Amino acid sequence: MQSSQDSAMTSSRSKITPERAQEFYDAVLTLLREGGYDALTMEGVAALSRCGKSTLYRQWGTKPQLVACALRGSRAGSLSDIDTGTLAGDLRLVARSLGTGSERDTPLMHAVSHAALQNPELLEALREALITPASAAFDEMIRRAVERGEIVADNPANGFVAAQLIGAMRARPMLEGVYADEDYLLRFLECVVFPVLGLTESP
Amino acid sequence: MQSSQDSAMTSSRSKITPERAQEFYDAVLTLLREGGYDALTMEGVAALSRCGKSTLYRQWGTKPQLVACALRGSRAGSLSDIDTGTLAGDLRLVARSLGTGSERDTPLMHAVSHAALQNPELLEALREALITPASAAFDEMIRRAVERGEIVADNPANGFVAAQLIGAMRARPMLEGVYADEDYLLRFLECVVFPVLGLTESP
Repeated sequence: MQSSQDSAMTSSRSKITPERAQEFYDAVLTLLREGGYDALTMEGVAALSRCGKSTLYRQWGTKPQLVACALRGSRAGSLSDIDTGTLAGDLRLVARSLGTGSERDTPLMHAVSHAALQNPELLEALREALITPASAAFDEMIRRAVERGEIVADNPANGFVAAQLIGAMRARPMLEGVYADEDYLLRFLECVVFPVLGLTESP
Repeated sequence: MQSSQDSAMTSSRSKITPERAQEFYDAVLTLLREGGYDALTMEGVAALSRCGKSTLYRQWGTKPQLVACALRGSRAGSLSDIDTGTLAGDLRLVARSLGTGSERDTPLMHAVSHAALQNPELLEALREALITPASAAFDEMIRRAVERGEIVADNPANGFVAAQLIGAMRARPMLEGVYADEDYLLRFLECVVFPVLGLTESP
């Protein structure tokens, strides 16, 4: 789960180990789940992870940056590791990754992304730590699929794969009153995303 | 903008005119934009629309129901009026309706739908007043298009049109840091929704 960028960040600033950093991140996620972004304080994180507040500020600079790093350590951060050999396989693994534990993580992401719309510094930190890498992971999956001849390079739908999947995650709770779990996202892939990419039925 | 259901509700409970109801709704939307759902109070709405709090309770019962009715009066409520004669035309009008004023209304919808995830009574009121009618409007557009022979009845993508469009609206701010305006939604329709429905290029 620990990305190389993350390890670099922690090691360049202090002697905090990745394991210790993960303890801070777990504290952040616990507090976000309990009370949302606005209620989270550096004091609260420090208390829960039994360290001084100054350690947090030294290490992560600001609350938005700490929160973004904590979220990067969770599921969405690992999309760049996915490489199954087919685009269908890659996207099914994305669906699995986004859908598993959606009961637990979706409210968290809703809360934080809602806060980000009103907090430019948080949005910027999320984009840098989480969204830009995730977009890049989708682009890379598409690039490999074009290279393998699975899809055509000039299909304008290629650029909307991330928006489609993330959109399906966000739309279902509103439309159906339940979170988008793995089953829903896999169905969405088969019914919508694969056909528009021109991906034929694959095993 | 005033739906027949809405007029029925207001006239059956008191002598409040649709125009007066709209003044209450405008007050609700103003307060939602200013401070979000949690900060909105019946007292605040009463003060802004110069009426007694008891009028609001008599008319709408609860804060979630008043908020849901106020949102129904806004753009999304009018999807059921759309009937251009082609599915492509209908969906372009939906995109226009959802995308126009997105700078103003998207934060509002984000705020309320976020609150709904933590407030079952609000979610239920929104579903009844807003989401179920919108879903029905999409189903009706699809039904007419099947009847006209524009699309095939058994395409599994038919059931995902609402999720796709609403998803695109919700995903773009996260992915690109800007709201989904009319241009974006029209592009999304042409690149993703129309192809997967098998709609050929239409004027």
